[in-house]
Amino acid sequence: MSMLVVGTMAFDSIEAPSGSVDRILGGSGTFSSFAASFFTKPKLTSIVGHDFPQSFREILLNRGVDLSGVQTMKEGKTFFWKGKYHEDMNTRDTLEVHLNVLAEFDPVLPTSYQESTHLFLANSSPQVQMKVIEQVKNPKLILADTMDFWIQSEHDALMQLLKQIDGLLLNDSEAKLLTGLDHLIPAAEAIRKLGPSFVVIKKGEHGSMLCSKDGVFAIPAYPTSQVKDPTGAGDSFAGALVGYLAEQKEYHPGQLRRAMAYGTVMASLTVESFGLDRLQSISREELDTRLFSYREMLNF
Amino acid sequence: MSMLVVGTMAFDSIEAPSGSVDRILGGSGTFSSFAASFFTKPKLTSIVGHDFPQSFREILLNRGVDLSGVQTMKEGKTFFWKGKYHEDMNTRDTLEVHLNVLAEFDPVLPTSYQESTHLFLANSSPQVQMKVIEQVKNPKLILADTMDFWIQSEHDALMQLLKQIDGLLLNDSEAKLLTGLDHLIPAAEAIRKLGPSFVVIKKGEHGSMLCSKDGVFAIPAYPTSQVKDPTGAGDSFAGALVGYLAEQKEYHPGQLRRAMAYGTVMASLTVESFGLDRLQSISREELDTRLFSYREMLNF
Repeated sequence: MSMLVVGTMAFDSIEAPSGSVDRILGGSGTFSSFAASFFTKPKLTSIVGHDFPQSFREILLNRGVDLSGVQTMKEGKTFFWKGKYHEDMNTRDTLEVHLNVLAEFDPVLPTSYQESTHLFLANSSPQVQMKVIEQVKNPKLILADTMDFWIQSEHDALMQLLKQIDGLLLNDSEAKLLTGLDHLIPAAEAIRKLGPSFVVIKKGEHGSMLCSKDGVFAIPAYPTSQVKDPTGAGDSFAGALVGYLAEQKEYHPGQLRRAMAYGTVMASLTVESFGLDRLQSISREELDTRLFSYREMLNF
Repeated sequence: MSMLVVGTMAFDSIEAPSGSVDRILGGSGTFSSFAASFFTKPKLTSIVGHDFPQSFREILLNRGVDLSGVQTMKEGKTFFWKGKYHEDMNTRDTLEVHLNVLAEFDPVLPTSYQESTHLFLANSSPQVQMKVIEQVKNPKLILADTMDFWIQSEHDALMQLLKQIDGLLLNDSEAKLLTGLDHLIPAAEAIRKLGPSFVVIKKGEHGSMLCSKDGVFAIPAYPTSQVKDPTGAGDSFAGALVGYLAEQKEYHPGQLRRAMAYGTVMASLTVESFGLDRLQSISREELDTRLFSYREMLNF
């Protein structure tokens, strides 16, 4: 099994009640491939500019992430995002976005990427996501993230995408926006009728929900009081989820639920520090220890 | 072990997207004692007017609820509440409130009530809640509910109450209001420093959280797509929680978490129909079946 991630690599500048950081390594592709690297050796497709430092590449290379499908545009600058979190850490304002080279991202997969079995398509336009799917020969599982912007501006393309994926990942307000339904369970069921066999709804501090043919599975967030920087929580959740599935040699019942649990503890670790700091500090064993304590918490 | 509930008995009129009902049996004392009756034979203290029908009493009497401490004011009318739920079922408007006899409620416990070991003090003024505590000789566990109104208007009395109880039950926005803190875990810890050894935070469709000396325990709501009427969910949660604890012959580790889980499934049943309809339709066995399926869901 081999995993492919398509997502951004970025410079993030973050202001939060817990502190500030400037131009640290961020991006959906970064967080999700790093999280997946606890389980498998993911391949990452992305685009960066001439200003992207080797030291940032090495953070991922040292984790076994394959960067041979990352395009470097000598003429452009790397995607930059600056945001400010409010006191409650649940809401944020985007202060600056410079798409830079991301505006020209046209994913062309190296041959070695085309045999990938497990795909995570981080949030981007449905057209870009479909273009990746077309190039993969025999995918076993495709999970795509989306957001309000695409739901509103690229509705028809999104509908096409939904027919081509196994799972859709989105947050609660996006699930309501996409379906026009006020309740999450009916909303998730409605999305499943549009194509995906399962839907994962992220609810931030309230945990997440999985709707599949096996019914509804709702789990809380892992309770941590050390929330320093929520950036990347959703992407590391997704990276762990798909990474765990890619690690499995054969299908076993409940593996999607276990994958969600890994995603949850990975996200809880991510938010405990800025950027990748916390994830860089832990081993698979420590991850499993948190998973164990999470399971224990829910064993009543 | 014997359980005492102090709370309202009411006529509820409810408008919801799922339908409307007029003057059905409601009230915090009603819901919590009914829920507790699956585990124990609770004693209820409340007040009603001359218009309160015998058939409503019998709904509780048939469940083994002791109503000998319910005062009947021949001169007055029963507490009446009319509310309207919005499309999302999470928010509601109060259309009418007639306190009626409730304005004169001065709880005086019959002698037989004074030996109660487990107390649930449903939402009411801290003064009324303390007056009940004074009359109980040797309580083992006291859980009190409160709300924004008392936090704002009776702050000092509430601080006094907190020193006298074991557990405080409140919703997420109330926990933030009481402490001025934006995050639930620090807020719960701050409340524990004011007196209660444990704090239960209700998060509606997002489940609940318990903070105690054993740490933080967060559980999701039981996923039900049949939400018809959320009225009474919090009170039946609390009634089941305390009722389960009152049923235990001796202390065992994790019993508070199990009690929370029973509260969660009880609340999920309550909301599946108007008033007590759904709870009246089930047996303890069916309740346990749902608890089992809830545990299975969380066993990943």
